[in-house]
Amino acid sequence: MAPPVKNAVRAAAAPTEEWSSQPEVTAAHPPKNAAGDGDRRPISTVLIIIAMQTEALPLVNKFHLSEDIDGSLFPKGVPWVRYHGIYKELHINLVWTGKDSILGVDSIGTISASLVSYASIQALKPDLIINAGTAGGFKAKGACVADVYLVSNVAFHDRRIPIHVNYLYGIGARQTFSTPNLIDELNLKVGKLSTGDSLDMSPQDEVLILANDAVVKDMEGAAVAYVADLLSVPAIFIKAVTNTVDGQKSIAEEFLQNLIAVCTTLAQTVSQVVDFISGVYQIIGIRKSTSVYRKLYINTDEYYILKIMYQFA
Amino acid sequence: MAPPVKNAVRAAAAPTEEWSSQPEVTAAHPPKNAAGDGDRRPISTVLIIIAMQTEALPLVNKFHLSEDIDGSLFPKGVPWVRYHGIYKELHINLVWTGKDSILGVDSIGTISASLVSYASIQALKPDLIINAGTAGGFKAKGACVADVYLVSNVAFHDRRIPIHVNYLYGIGARQTFSTPNLIDELNLKVGKLSTGDSLDMSPQDEVLILANDAVVKDMEGAAVAYVADLLSVPAIFIKAVTNTVDGQKSIAEEFLQNLIAVCTTLAQTVSQVVDFISGVYQIIGIRKSTSVYRKLYINTDEYYILKIMYQFA
Repeated sequence: MAPPVKNAVRAAAAPTEEWSSQPEVTAAHPPKNAAGDGDRRPISTVLIIIAMQTEALPLVNKFHLSEDIDGSLFPKGVPWVRYHGIYKELHINLVWTGKDSILGVDSIGTISASLVSYASIQALKPDLIINAGTAGGFKAKGACVADVYLVSNVAFHDRRIPIHVNYLYGIGARQTFSTPNLIDELNLKVGKLSTGDSLDMSPQDEVLILANDAVVKDMEGAAVAYVADLLSVPAIFIKAVTNTVDGQKSIAEEFLQNLIAVCTTLAQTVSQVVDFISGVYQIIGIRKSTSVYRKLYINTDEYYILKIMYQFA
Repeated sequence: MAPPVKNAVRAAAAPTEEWSSQPEVTAAHPPKNAAGDGDRRPISTVLIIIAMQTEALPLVNKFHLSEDIDGSLFPKGVPWVRYHGIYKELHINLVWTGKDSILGVDSIGTISASLVSYASIQALKPDLIINAGTAGGFKAKGACVADVYLVSNVAFHDRRIPIHVNYLYGIGARQTFSTPNLIDELNLKVGKLSTGDSLDMSPQDEVLILANDAVVKDMEGAAVAYVADLLSVPAIFIKAVTNTVDGQKSIAEEFLQNLIAVCTTLAQTVSQVVDFISGVYQIIGIRKSTSVYRKLYINTDEYYILKIMYQFA
């Protein structure tokens, strides 16, 4: 598509009424029927999508996952790596976007994340996607290093298309899959995520990040959400803060200083989320008084085949 | 991935020596063998990837393509539209990224372009990709409205990752598939393309577009090139200039004023390229004296199975 350029930055920073409102797409939900919860599909296969090896390895270890050796899941030539295993009755698939074959660095950013999401959904037919990763946090919005956020909404901040409704397409704002019981049970922080392909933040990015009301900023989330919505797979987003974006410290220094520890924290939270999904967290009686537990208790006869959708209801 | 932010804009604008050189990836080439041209795979299936309906329709008409009605090529939920038909012995597939299901606008930009490239390559196993579309042109580099460029190199200008070699991954500079005989035969303008997800151009974008030495700017090319290279499919890029980026006229006005006419010009050039690929252009004797013709003549006994790879050699 041709790029008209002049005056467009100003237009993006001060949108006209015509395209300033941002109606959000509601994330994919599993089908419900009038008879109640009984026909809801249980979660059996979980797909965890991760962009950095440092983010992936603690989870590979935690869930005792094995790397695909034959590489037959994805076509020849792509760097994507799948780890898989059974954990508490769930089929866990962790797909890492892998290293660029020429440059040897992690395949970060929206293009690799969207491709891996598409290819993995096609190959694995997951019941739920978890996009887990590190993020920058906005101190002014209450984010601190090592905070872990469950993302309520995603949007892009570097797709400026200031022509009427194309503007909304570029922003790509959407709600993520709603999980109130999970948030309540694990006492997770909840916030909005803004995604862009740059590690830095230009003034134009900042304008849209503020407009997106984001508390965390990453390089993949909204792309994963776009593909998950296209293919109607529920997706949740867990982002751990390695550095503040608007703090006083050197960002690069803070990022490198905190990366390993924050990835461990990220893995702990993802693990708790997967435990919650498996239902085992409740069954072993850690917090019997929650509504989650009660819902499971009411349906003990159906427990093995129903599990998680009650918890997300 | 976490986004360190502070000072990064300045770093991107003035890269250190460590990551300022941009080694380019060489595009995928069909396999050669020591015995000469005889084993090269002929081009039979061509995949044309297009982001805008206005760009697609003149080619659908020109090649008398039919739209897929059953929609079985791609998964349910995606908006991608495939048109196909036989044209001069070639299986032509034109895949348009389609309209966003909620907003009703063309699915432009790198994410849709990369997804469509991946899915179409997997489904159709094309021998050659042609990414055709409109673009903004840089007057200072010699581009004029209605010029059509065959792209020699692609890169991104909105993926700033100023951490050592990650910077080069973000830029994603690569050579396209080399076609000297095609350029010579059709007397095409040749230039470098820079790709980004915004229709406008921020100061940060401009710095990298200049660093990429681009004469044209679009929103899909480098993403298509990335996927084509991953999956080792030769790809060429034909971009027609709707507006100048650095001219005196209103860009939006110039774009809208020229869009229809330039899409007709684009279709004419793509059609000439496809004619060239089919070999018919030479066989009917329009320009018998070219090296292309001579190569074909030398191999008349193998003509039907060899065709195009001679021309690209």
